[in-house]
Amino acid sequence: MNAIDKLVEHFRRFPGIGPRQANRFVYHLLGQNHASRDDLARLITELKSEAQMCGVCGQFFTKKQPNISKCNICNDVNRDNTVLMVVEKDADLQSIEKGGIYNGYYFILGGIVPILEKNPENKIRIRELEKRIANTSTLSEIILALSATTEGDNTTTYLRETLTPVAKKSDLKISILGRGLSTGSELEYSDPDTISNALRNRS
Amino acid sequence: MNAIDKLVEHFRRFPGIGPRQANRFVYHLLGQNHASRDDLARLITELKSEAQMCGVCGQFFTKKQPNISKCNICNDVNRDNTVLMVVEKDADLQSIEKGGIYNGYYFILGGIVPILEKNPENKIRIRELEKRIANTSTLSEIILALSATTEGDNTTTYLRETLTPVAKKSDLKISILGRGLSTGSELEYSDPDTISNALRNRS
Amino acid sequence: MNAIDKLVEHFRRFPGIGPRQANRFVYHLLGQNHASRDDLARLITELKSEAQMCGVCGQFFTKKQPNISKCNICNDVNRDNTVLMVVEKDADLQSIEKGGIYNGYYFILGGIVPILEKNPENKIRIRELEKRIANTSTLSEIILALSATTEGDNTTTYLRETLTPVAKKSDLKISILGRGLSTGSELEYSDPDTISNALRNRS
Amino acid sequence: MNAIDKLVEHFRRFPGIGPRQANRFVYHLLGQNHASRDDLARLITELKSEAQMCGVCGQFFTKKQPNISKCNICNDVNRDNTVLMVVEKDADLQSIEKGGIYNGYYFILGGIVPILEKNPENKIRIRELEKRIANTSTLSEIILALSATTEGDNTTTYLRETLTPVAKKSDLKISILGRGLSTGSELEYSDPDTISNALRNRS
Repeated sequence: MNAIDKLVEHFRRFPGIGPRQANRFVYHLLGQNHASRDDLARLITELKSEAQMCGVCGQFFTKKQPNISKCNICNDVNRDNTVLMVVEKDADLQSIEKGGIYNGYYFILGGIVPILEKNPENKIRIRELEKRIANTSTLSEIILALSATTEGDNTTTYLRETLTPVAKKSDLKISILGRGLSTGSELEYSDPDTISNALRNRS
Repeated sequence: MNAIDKLVEHFRRFPGIGPRQANRFVYHLLGQNHASRDDLARLITELKSEAQMCGVCGQFFTKKQPNISKCNICNDVNRDNTVLMVVEKDADLQSIEKGGIYNGYYFILGGIVPILEKNPENKIRIRELEKRIANTSTLSEIILALSATTEGDNTTTYLRETLTPVAKKSDLKISILGRGLSTGSELEYSDPDTISNALRNRS
Repeated sequence: MNAIDKLVEHFRRFPGIGPRQANRFVYHLLGQNHASRDDLARLITELKSEAQMCGVCGQFFTKKQPNISKCNICNDVNRDNTVLMVVEKDADLQSIEKGGIYNGYYFILGGIVPILEKNPENKIRIRELEKRIANTSTLSEIILALSATTEGDNTTTYLRETLTPVAKKSDLKISILGRGLSTGSELEYSDPDTISNALRNRS
Repeated sequence: MNAIDKLVEHFRRFPGIGPRQANRFVYHLLGQNHASRDDLARLITELKSEAQMCGVCGQFFTKKQPNISKCNICNDVNRDNTVLMVVEKDADLQSIEKGGIYNGYYFILGGIVPILEKNPENKIRIRELEKRIANTSTLSEIILALSATTEGDNTTTYLRETLTPVAKKSDLKISILGRGLSTGSELEYSDPDTISNALRNRS
């Protein structure tokens, strides 16, 4: 496989990119000048030294000072330290922050648990999560905020089972996000599962 | 306006039909044989004598015997007579029935209340709903099952205000459908409003 | 099958309408008042007496006077009587007229010839077309203007074979619409067949 | 602007990529291991030394031997040297090759001429094209194969004007791709411009 094909392969692994668009990316780069390509390559190489995974929640942030190891959110002492929200990835955290009503802390799993997965502990940062919970004496609730997909549900089930012993011992509530009609959806076109949830979770 | 144009006008008022498709409908009919067109016209004319609005819930059903005035659901004594679900239209009722977990009775509003509407009582069957509630001594809960749209929310607000006095007097709970993540939706792509609801309605 | 179901069946045969929308049409009609439904039924019944198939080209038009048997286009003596365009249906004729550059006459086939059809003469008005050609001594070109689909191509092949004897005898040119890039299409995303045509038909 | 934001900026310039997806690309890279990111950066840096622009047609190809300066197509002596096809970019050349019926040579413009552009010679490789034509005594036809878009048409107009003197002198035909119905399109839904072209280019 030649260099162009290898580059196409890399771009195909980018989220949402098919072979055709991966191909166009390479031609786009070929059409760029030398300096622009070198700049891109340098930014990719230095990504890990510029960006850093927060030692507390696991989200990525830009290092501004050499000896900082916590992201802005984990550094913010005005947040509610009784609640911890567990999400799959950084983008989910950003979505929640945009909602603007959550004021607790986060934990990034760094993955999901596929159906029939035999070693879930290799797919998500469960050990780090257990440690994070053990180290926070103020905690009273853990919110499992996974997507409403099959794999998201599977991850929720796994987390609930794994965390139940420590939750019982420390008297922690484990909660999940509400299911029901999403904003803008019409009853007539909603799927039976969503309708059942909306009915069960009526208030 | 000639006959063809008048017919196009009728079809344009059909739900989801634009001028182009309305036009195609007329050509479709012109291409049909005489008997088929007459059959269609006859079915439309006889619709009201064949179909009938249920005297209790307001949904349409096919009259099988001349002296029946109640639909199958309202006739079913095995349903839960402590709960009444209020929906906008027949199609919503069918959606709920497909969910398969609701076993109470229904009431069809026959419309919604637009924003800034001055006479909501002309848009929906509110008088009939009040009568229906007054006549059902077994009732303990009214579920307002409107779409999660601006007009649906407006209708819910109006219904809640209007029904609160009778609900208080008869000790009825007024509930609304749960809001949150709909089945299959990903956290990353959910709108802030849905995320806020999902968080508020966590369990 | 009851009256409502029969009506749903009728609407399902309308072009582009699925079972769900057919159902909504019936509820739409049930929600209309008596007069509106009767008006619609009457317009459908009287469609054939109000509308009329042009005795020359076969398109439908609204009868304005009792003894008119030709549409506006066939009645227009200022059109070019040396060219006749053969189309599948009324909507195609309207599309061509919108283009605004054709000034000849039309002939409506009233159908297309499916692949492997054994009796094409039952599917399209081929006898009437032959008669139309035979009766027009001024003709010098017949344009076969079918869609660029498999069935359209099949119809073109059948017409060409069937009309070749009379075309030879009367020295008529038989032409087909140009194939190639449609307006707005990008080379990169065009299918191989379209590109081949565009290349073959370069000018 | 920090490193992550700069990287997002780079990805936003990739064809078809919006801010949201550019953001996801960065998180995708952050989730990759060190070796994979370094491999990607290296491939991007070495792109120009591995890939090479063909000295004859201008398309990019993978250098296999150090002293090769022509792509496979320009190296192929069995191709038809009487015809030269001018395209905007590499992806267009690949589309034509997939069509499988063109057997001449190509020239990549490396861009298009925007409407009202004052210096078209800065946007496309027009000087190289003129040189390529001057150096090919066998040539009898130049095919201007631009997209059927406003900018494509503008580029065609500019090329035709610029190349006409040399074409006249050397008795070269300048042709453009055929316009008309693209494969699969229905007459009823075709735009007036496409229909006019199809009619004008009937055969």
